[in-house]
Parts: sequence; structure tokens; C-alpha cells
Amino acid sequence: MTVKQLTLPELADNCVEFGVPGVGLWREPVRSYGVPAAARLMRDAGLTVTTLCRGGFLTALAPGERAAALDDNRRAVDEAAALGTTTLVLVSGGLPAGSKDLHGARERIADALAELGPYAEERGVRLALEPLHPMFAADRCVVSTLAQALDLAERFPAEQVGVTVDTYHIWWDDRAPEQIARAGAGGRLLAFQLADWITPLPHGVLNGRGPLGDGAIDLRAWRALAEAAGHTGLIEVELFNEDLWARPGRELFADTVRRFAAHVFD
Amino acid sequence: MTVKQLTLPELADNCVEFGVPGVGLWREPVRSYGVPAAARLMRDAGLTVTTLCRGGFLTALAPGERAAALDDNRRAVDEAAALGTTTLVLVSGGLPAGSKDLHGARERIADALAELGPYAEERGVRLALEPLHPMFAADRCVVSTLAQALDLAERFPAEQVGVTVDTYHIWWDDRAPEQIARAGAGGRLLAFQLADWITPLPHGVLNGRGPLGDGAIDLRAWRALAEAAGHTGLIEVELFNEDLWARPGRELFADTVRRFAAHVFD
Repeated sequence: MTVKQLTLPELADNCVEFGVPGVGLWREPVRSYGVPAAARLMRDAGLTVTTLCRGGFLTALAPGERAAALDDNRRAVDEAAALGTTTLVLVSGGLPAGSKDLHGARERIADALAELGPYAEERGVRLALEPLHPMFAADRCVVSTLAQALDLAERFPAEQVGVTVDTYHIWWDDRAPEQIARAGAGGRLLAFQLADWITPLPHGVLNGRGPLGDGAIDLRAWRALAEAAGHTGLIEVELFNEDLWARPGRELFADTVRRFAAHVFD
Repeated sequence: MTVKQLTLPELADNCVEFGVPGVGLWREPVRSYGVPAAARLMRDAGLTVTTLCRGGFLTALAPGERAAALDDNRRAVDEAAALGTTTLVLVSGGLPAGSKDLHGARERIADALAELGPYAEERGVRLALEPLHPMFAADRCVVSTLAQALDLAERFPAEQVGVTVDTYHIWWDDRAPEQIARAGAGGRLLAFQLADWITPLPHGVLNGRGPLGDGAIDLRAWRALAEAAGHTGLIEVELFNEDLWARPGRELFADTVRRFAAHVFD
């Protein structure tokens, strides 16, 4: 998504050119390209598909909407399995229109995980629940902290449900370091993503993530915490930013690789 | 601030007309009008000044900036005392330019409270530290949860430092209910403010608060929690919203009073 202006073949080429060994994919471009073809493309390029983003949006009250969401998540699991990734990132969903019941919405997520977890496990996929920044609690994700995400995940086997940690969403939280350790100790730290925090936030706040090193987040410190918790997987960079998407994709890719080396490692 | 288009005399008149017994004031209009004159105006109208907003911005690293901030906060304490309110709301401040050290910034707030607390107590004023929504952690307030605010406040006597609870900032936090109880039990729940959460957030996210009842927050439930924690003071409504400020002040005042009755009480 960081370089969404690239086609999937361009993305694979850029990864190979710049020595990036893996890539997190989003469902929409994968489905447009064709799931088997995308799987073949990444495999032929020697790339690991780190995660598929994303399933979720499991908070609907209406039975029809809820059934449709579960169906869609089962499809997402199938797509993840076909791509050869073991991790499907889930963004839980916000409050249904008119509802003020955060607790109820969180319980519906648990109900959905109970249905989806075994389905995913049978296909070798784990569900990686992602807490989103509290500014998204109403309209996108009622799971706002890593502690909440783990409280939900730990109701289920670690072979079924874990968490995604994204620095953009948790950097402000003084409890997050201990929660990363908790996730690691439980074998539930399934994905680790980086983005920096810059202000002012844009209208709608979705597409204002900062290039690595430009913002307030101590990326090295968070990387060290993930490592100390036993995270040995690849690290993703996930930026949503209109200004970045307006730049030539290859140049942005190269800049992101340079920033990753400069701001994430000592 | 909700009706900042009104002059202070208009504000006092509206309070009397609509039966609102008290008002939270901001420093800028009070200083423009003159502190003794504003105090007299509110007293003559029979109004309680619930709080003065705001002191704070105590995270500077440069010694000169830090000394200036402490001076300004002592002036804010003096103004609060002159207005006859016992509560000065503090917004702690964000990260200094270029800093990524949230912990250090939080410790500088504690250092400042150690200097300001006794000064305030001698003048009959308590400092009410306000956690702001995590979306303000970088640029406005490194204290992002009520638990953090209480962790800081409890290092000092309850006669010096307490907290402000604003639904807009804490509504997403599943730990906030227990923290309101903690604040009440410790005699530190000094101010209780209401605003609703609406989306999309505007550019800069500061002036997008929702009119009571229009958003995602269960205001009745939070009011009940504050009452259960022993809050017997007046409740403030604090909306920053460009659209509301563009409306005629008296009409907005009347609408806010109507919404307060409809959405806050059973």
C-alpha cells in the first residue's frame, strides 16, 4: 500500500532490485490481478508474502451484513492461503451507524473470531487482529490498544488468532511496550509494521502517515521491543499518504528503502 | 469556548436567561476583558466559575522556554484565584520539535507540577491535569489516558493536583471507567466536561467536536460514572467546532442547553 501507484509486477521488480525479501499485499490489487497469478508472480520473484491485508469489519448488527462479512473473511483466508502467507491482518470495524455500544461491538468481534479461527487454522492461516489508533474507534476499529487486541486474541488458540503491531497506532501508549512483550511471549506477534507520525493530520485522518524518520515515533526503540519479544519475521512499512502516492513509485520505493536503513536500525 | 462568538457580558446574560448556574472560562477572553472586571461580571450574575482553561504546555526542553512556561502558569493560577474558581485546567504540552522522547516529556511535566503545585495550593487553586486524545500526543499533550494523568497527579497531594475528565478524549478507552472511579476515590476528579465524537475529523483535528447527541459517545453512561465516582460539581460542555462558531451565539447556547437536557440525563 505504501507504493500503491506500482502495479504488482512493478512491485515485485522493485523488491528484487532493492533487495527487499518480502512484501505485504492488499486484497484489492491482488484480486484485480488474479489471486493465482499474483501468487505465482511473487513466488517466481523469490518473495515472501508477509501478510494479506485485510479482513475484518466484523461489528455489523444486521444479520445479513454480519453473514456477508463472515463470508468475505472466509474468502480472505482462502486468498491468504493461496498467496502462501500464514497471516491475514484483521481490522475489526467501527460502531454500526447510530450505535454507541463499544463493548457490544467488541464482543461481536469475539463471536466472529470464534467462527473464523478454526476455518483459518485448517488452511494454515492465522488471524492477526490489529489495534488501530483511537482516532479510528468510531468509524473503523473499536479495538484501540494492543492490550485490548490481546484480550480478544487470548480467548482463542495462538494457532488461530494473534495481533498486528503497527507503530503508527500504538506509539503514544505507555502500556504498549509491555503488551508487545506479552504478544511475543504468547506466540501472537504475527506482524510488525512501521509508519511515522506527522502533523497536522489531514481531513479524515486516514492518509496522513509520515515517511520513516520524519515524525515523532522512535522507530528504533519499537523495533528493538519487537525483537526483544522474539519477533524474527520481516518488518513491513505501511504508509497511507496522498503526497507519497503522487510521487513516481520507483523513486518512493527507493526512498523508503533508504529511510528503513537509516531510521530503523542502529 | 463552546460559544466563543459571545462576549463575556453576553455569555453571562445567556447563562442567567437559560438557567445555567456556572461557566468555564478561557484565559484569552478573560484577559482581554480584564480579570477583575470578568470576576465582577460573573459574580454579579450569580454565576460559579467552574474552571479556568488553561495552563500547561510544560514540556519545553530549552531553559528559557521552560521558565517562561512556569511564569505563565503562575499567572494562570493568579487569574483563577481572582476569578474565584478553585480549578485550573492544564494541558500538558506535546513533544518539543525534533524530540521523540514521550517519557522524558512526561517527566518534565512532573517536575513542573512539583513547582506549581505548592504555588497553586497557597492561592486555593488546584491543577487539573487533562488527558487529551492520543491523536494530540505529538503536538499538544503527551498525557493521553486518564490512567497516565492519575499516575502523574498522584505523585502530589490531592490539594494540589487532580484531573480533568473530558468525554471527547477518553470515550474510546476501556480502562477509563475504572480510572474515573480511581480519580473520585482519591478526591482528584476536579472537572468533568462533555463533547461528542463525530467523523470525519477536520484537517488538524482540533475543531471537529460534535454537538451533544450527534456522535458516538454514550454521554449518559459517562455522566453516571462521574456521579458514581462522587462528582457533584457542575458539568461543562466544551465544543470546538468551526461550524458551531459560525452560528448566532444565543441560538447555539439555547441548542446546547436543550441537548444537555436531552442527551446527558435520563
